[in-house]
Amino acid sequence: MKAVVYKGPFNVAVEEVPDPRIEHPSDVVVRVTSTAICGSDLHMYEGRTAAEPGIVFGHENLGIVEEVGSAVVSVAQGDRVVMPFNVACGFCKNCIAGYTGFCLTVNPGFAGGAYGYVAMGPYRGGQAEYLRVPFADFNCTKLPPGDEHETDFVLLADIFPTGYHGCHLADVSPGETVAVYGGGPVGLMAAYSALLRGASRVFVVDRVPERLDKARGIGATPIDFEQRNPVEQIHDQLGGEGPDKGIDAVGYQAQSHESGREEPAIVLNSLIQTVRATGALGVPGLYVPADPGASDEAARQGQLLVAVGKMFEKGLRMGTGQTNVKRYILQLRDLIIAGRAAPGFVVSHELPLEQAPEAYEKFDKRVEGYTKVVLHPGS
Amino acid sequence: MKAVVYKGPFNVAVEEVPDPRIEHPSDVVVRVTSTAICGSDLHMYEGRTAAEPGIVFGHENLGIVEEVGSAVVSVAQGDRVVMPFNVACGFCKNCIAGYTGFCLTVNPGFAGGAYGYVAMGPYRGGQAEYLRVPFADFNCTKLPPGDEHETDFVLLADIFPTGYHGCHLADVSPGETVAVYGGGPVGLMAAYSALLRGASRVFVVDRVPERLDKARGIGATPIDFEQRNPVEQIHDQLGGEGPDKGIDAVGYQAQSHESGREEPAIVLNSLIQTVRATGALGVPGLYVPADPGASDEAARQGQLLVAVGKMFEKGLRMGTGQTNVKRYILQLRDLIIAGRAAPGFVVSHELPLEQAPEAYEKFDKRVEGYTKVVLHPGS
Amino acid sequence: MKAVVYKGPFNVAVEEVPDPRIEHPSDVVVRVTSTAICGSDLHMYEGRTAAEPGIVFGHENLGIVEEVGSAVVSVAQGDRVVMPFNVACGFCKNCIAGYTGFCLTVNPGFAGGAYGYVAMGPYRGGQAEYLRVPFADFNCTKLPPGDEHETDFVLLADIFPTGYHGCHLADVSPGETVAVYGGGPVGLMAAYSALLRGASRVFVVDRVPERLDKARGIGATPIDFEQRNPVEQIHDQLGGEGPDKGIDAVGYQAQSHESGREEPAIVLNSLIQTVRATGALGVPGLYVPADPGASDEAARQGQLLVAVGKMFEKGLRMGTGQTNVKRYILQLRDLIIAGRAAPGFVVSHELPLEQAPEAYEKFDKRVEGYTKVVLHPGS
Amino acid sequence: MKAVVYKGPFNVAVEEVPDPRIEHPSDVVVRVTSTAICGSDLHMYEGRTAAEPGIVFGHENLGIVEEVGSAVVSVAQGDRVVMPFNVACGFCKNCIAGYTGFCLTVNPGFAGGAYGYVAMGPYRGGQAEYLRVPFADFNCTKLPPGDEHETDFVLLADIFPTGYHGCHLADVSPGETVAVYGGGPVGLMAAYSALLRGASRVFVVDRVPERLDKARGIGATPIDFEQRNPVEQIHDQLGGEGPDKGIDAVGYQAQSHESGREEPAIVLNSLIQTVRATGALGVPGLYVPADPGASDEAARQGQLLVAVGKMFEKGLRMGTGQTNVKRYILQLRDLIIAGRAAPGFVVSHELPLEQAPEAYEKFDKRVEGYTKVVLHPGS
Repeated sequence: MKAVVYKGPFNVAVEEVPDPRIEHPSDVVVRVTSTAICGSDLHMYEGRTAAEPGIVFGHENLGIVEEVGSAVVSVAQGDRVVMPFNVACGFCKNCIAGYTGFCLTVNPGFAGGAYGYVAMGPYRGGQAEYLRVPFADFNCTKLPPGDEHETDFVLLADIFPTGYHGCHLADVSPGETVAVYGGGPVGLMAAYSALLRGASRVFVVDRVPERLDKARGIGATPIDFEQRNPVEQIHDQLGGEGPDKGIDAVGYQAQSHESGREEPAIVLNSLIQTVRATGALGVPGLYVPADPGASDEAARQGQLLVAVGKMFEKGLRMGTGQTNVKRYILQLRDLIIAGRAAPGFVVSHELPLEQAPEAYEKFDKRVEGYTKVVLHPGS
Repeated sequence: MKAVVYKGPFNVAVEEVPDPRIEHPSDVVVRVTSTAICGSDLHMYEGRTAAEPGIVFGHENLGIVEEVGSAVVSVAQGDRVVMPFNVACGFCKNCIAGYTGFCLTVNPGFAGGAYGYVAMGPYRGGQAEYLRVPFADFNCTKLPPGDEHETDFVLLADIFPTGYHGCHLADVSPGETVAVYGGGPVGLMAAYSALLRGASRVFVVDRVPERLDKARGIGATPIDFEQRNPVEQIHDQLGGEGPDKGIDAVGYQAQSHESGREEPAIVLNSLIQTVRATGALGVPGLYVPADPGASDEAARQGQLLVAVGKMFEKGLRMGTGQTNVKRYILQLRDLIIAGRAAPGFVVSHELPLEQAPEAYEKFDKRVEGYTKVVLHPGS
Repeated sequence: MKAVVYKGPFNVAVEEVPDPRIEHPSDVVVRVTSTAICGSDLHMYEGRTAAEPGIVFGHENLGIVEEVGSAVVSVAQGDRVVMPFNVACGFCKNCIAGYTGFCLTVNPGFAGGAYGYVAMGPYRGGQAEYLRVPFADFNCTKLPPGDEHETDFVLLADIFPTGYHGCHLADVSPGETVAVYGGGPVGLMAAYSALLRGASRVFVVDRVPERLDKARGIGATPIDFEQRNPVEQIHDQLGGEGPDKGIDAVGYQAQSHESGREEPAIVLNSLIQTVRATGALGVPGLYVPADPGASDEAARQGQLLVAVGKMFEKGLRMGTGQTNVKRYILQLRDLIIAGRAAPGFVVSHELPLEQAPEAYEKFDKRVEGYTKVVLHPGS
Repeated sequence: MKAVVYKGPFNVAVEEVPDPRIEHPSDVVVRVTSTAICGSDLHMYEGRTAAEPGIVFGHENLGIVEEVGSAVVSVAQGDRVVMPFNVACGFCKNCIAGYTGFCLTVNPGFAGGAYGYVAMGPYRGGQAEYLRVPFADFNCTKLPPGDEHETDFVLLADIFPTGYHGCHLADVSPGETVAVYGGGPVGLMAAYSALLRGASRVFVVDRVPERLDKARGIGATPIDFEQRNPVEQIHDQLGGEGPDKGIDAVGYQAQSHESGREEPAIVLNSLIQTVRATGALGVPGLYVPADPGASDEAARQGQLLVAVGKMFEKGLRMGTGQTNVKRYILQLRDLIIAGRAAPGFVVSHELPLEQAPEAYEKFDKRVEGYTKVVLHPGS
């Protein structure tokens, strides 16, 4: 079959690879109809991880079940399914507690697995014609048949739940005010989720006009951090007070407007300044324990200068970590089906699988409006 | 009346000061019978804060109501009461939400007030014969008449709820395993609270033999960090896994065993290493936004190098900030009355008010077993 | 001043009564600008309670502070304020825990107080030109100056929070499906709140076309129980399954469509049939421990035949009781100010105080579209 | 193999039945070493259910894995395991949400399955030499090897978690006061769990001296309802107030002391009287939607006269339903391993499987101290 294969920094190719097959009685094989490129794929693409050439990318996958292992009971051939990006067993201590992003079974020696991602276990990615799904009863989420909402549904694999996870970590509640740093796909999904959860006002901090426009379009207040200090802008809008909650949808590759360079803790520290005392921070944005490309030794080891004193003085709480997609996916799916959520507005491009190399290149450069790309194998 | 007055670094005196009186219809005046010296009083005593000479210390206060303002309805002359260290109004946005440690009314321009503490509002401390209590209906907690449990009850003003707060911030739940860094009064109260909440195993990390003995005495497992890396010791005891939860009862004046110097983030980072993925940290230990005595410029501004990358990888949550005593005090009082909790075991000395100068000196030097001192004015 | 005075069953008059005054240093006196008639006022109006003639009605009150007691610190003359219908002290065990509807101070011998309601304490109602507000720092909620959103804001005193309380009791969460029985003002507020909280589908069960229309207008699905069994209708709409949550916005005066008579448990039992296993019920609808007008002896004593067996089999949870308005009012106010909620759509009539007798009569008979009346004293 | 087979009312026999075998790749077969008789087995034994002769009883099972299906990954031959009484799939909507007692997969047309129980699916019971366990990765909980704590561990299958579930449903929290109605095995486990969770005072209401003694033995206060009205006794002990929380560990076969007859709602209504306003009730005690042996028509249909009016006035919450064992089992297991819980104190008899008929007879008659029997096949 054809698949998007990593060849080396800034280089992917669509190549023939062996078809996946049932390896364990709990597996299914899915024919992929939609698979999105994630911002986190770019970490590998840019060569800033330990990913070796040969890996097949893709952890945001949706398709039709083609083949079913003998132990599978709830999924049948022909079912339309979306797969959380986390590969999880469903029965370990963490999965039972709902922490399916930290499964202890699927990636021995580590808490958590994923498709097509370096160090996340032996699971090939879904930017391909077919995908093997282990523990299929647990890892497949059924969708209505047909192709309705395809673009919305594929976002259930990762970024819609990930934005929602930010709100969950910050416990965003009805009537609250929320500051979201980062207006990329995850930031927009966080703002969108905050509004779904009943927030009274949501601010989205970014500098890219298209992102700020999209934020405005969903009912959030855009804050352009190139205009003025975003903390001040938000406090001004709230009569001098900080918002109740804050979400970091940027992570460690944050850039400072002043210096024009990466300052990996700038968003965290801005949030600590922004949010009011007694508030909470949700951090779905990625921070890594080892970043060989960082500019100083501490950051290379994942240590950042954080305003812990101010955080304590304000009595802030902070939640971090990758999303436990399974915890939210049914509810978010049902919002889409009911017509109450349509996250697909963040998708800028839908392309055949074959155009993956071009899509990676443009998405990585953020050119021509490439903000979120969905690939359609076999289209 | 007599009161403990701060004269300058390493110098307090028992002096005559004007008697407090009813200043507002919601006030009461309490005749203090027990008032404890807190570890946080030592920050002022050592001259590491902006405290000016003349301040009367004391925020852990218990006594008998002597005089009652005209608006007070629930407290009467002769009532025995203990006062949460936080001064709070009971009706601002934060108090209504239970965040009485971040009251917006009592200390204009800041979230939170306290008795006898620098920058925490105009409230004189209770290491004195009498204490004015504002918003008395809200700030007095009634106790059974008499003098039973006096030593236990005075700890309700601060350190018992503060230890409990650490468990609350980390959401310590029945059956869980917990690592507490710091075996001082707050650390012991945190460990004690974790056991009250049903933890299956609790570790207390310290190096002082008396503290480790007390930890063992309440059913916790002492970990002497001078023997070996405490992270390894705890992991070994748990079959290679980390505990579910961690509590930082040390704060920014943490000392490194290796270097023998203050390393303000060493406990936070040890906890991040210690606790298992999906876990949570409770941080009742104090971190400050400005520490002029710190050894490097970042720390002087309250910024510490934190292992954010590892924290994210493990999906840890962290809660910080001073205790909202009012949220816990009735339940903890009832545990004492029912004979199910007796936190007084941490008190090493009970002395007349007059011996305050000596008590401060010895407590500050941690000599002669001075771990927790309760002063009794008028005794 | 003028006030709405209860004269006897089906008889109220606007009469002169003595002006309220500051009786305690914590009081304020408010000049009432808006005061709504509540469905629960009709229980008294119809003579189905122990209310004695002479009582001044009105527990949904908004106005301008006129006079301020000497102990009050956060409210000033000229402030525009809305008062939760519960009178509460803010410092008793229940108030501290957020249960301000069950205050132990304001109505000795009972848990909970209110303005202008039989057995709810000595607090005169606000369907009058002026209102005394005790514990004013706690019982006043400040509003922006002016008269904007007046109709929305007056609903913050009771029915908006009460509908929201139904959702809180049932823990309505994003993506869930919800059945609301009763399309009166509280039912509509419950449905509206469920949608604010992110429900995917909300059903409103009633038979009055205007109510069903209003339900449709806010995005809920109307279910006319005269057409067909509402349980079946809802299950059909959900593909055979029950909704996740249910809300009883009717209470004990429920009428059976089949029998045409009051059947006080019919809504509770319909909800038990309606909701899916593992679900939850929120019951803001009133049930009373003594109902002299009930048709059988058990009901007269507040005992109803409930399908406890089916409830257990499904593992349902149920929350009941009057609303703790203070717990929700700031967040709901902020949603109105931000333009994200406009509950005033349920108000059918805004009238001068003088027209109260006519308004009571027509509201009681549900004629001429009288669904929710706001009175404006002095207009 | 040998198994306890139901022959008809008041008649069980130990008979040869076919050995269980792997029927599905996710199954394991366990050699049972301990299997307890549950109070709910007596409902079938007494002929008060639709159970047909031939059913093999036993849903509280512990043993050694003998045979392992090809899809099973986390359980190996020789592992010592205990099985929650609920059979659950681990991947349906309810299981994902933690409601494993309401699994939608294992018992089509119903929410929830169990071993050896009428209407709970096709799963043979474990009062036998061997047991087939479906979805074994999810339904087996691993124990330390050996035979330590065998009597404690077997109670993890049902009654320890069920008592704990009562506390969970009532949200029993540190410092609270709790009334448990029923001092049988589940009631004692509820009281024991309340104390583990930090309750300050726990009352156990019963009339059997042995049960009251055991309650006293674990630190609870026994209340003999034959001495005096238990509501009054508890209120007297609490200075006139009700306890914060209440647990119904009796269910529908409750007996009235006055009448000497079954009064199925007497415990529920006593709890509503007992508990203080704002409190909560946990109902692990069984209520059934159809009870052919009940004394009146409503009860035969599972409808009971409940003091709904008083419940509403007090603002009580109530949680019901069978336990989701999987939600608690790891934490409770770890408390046993750590030596912090030893629930085995409720076991009165440990007998070979062959003595099951005699054990059922005596347990049913509550003679000779038969309060909880554990059978040991092959012993």
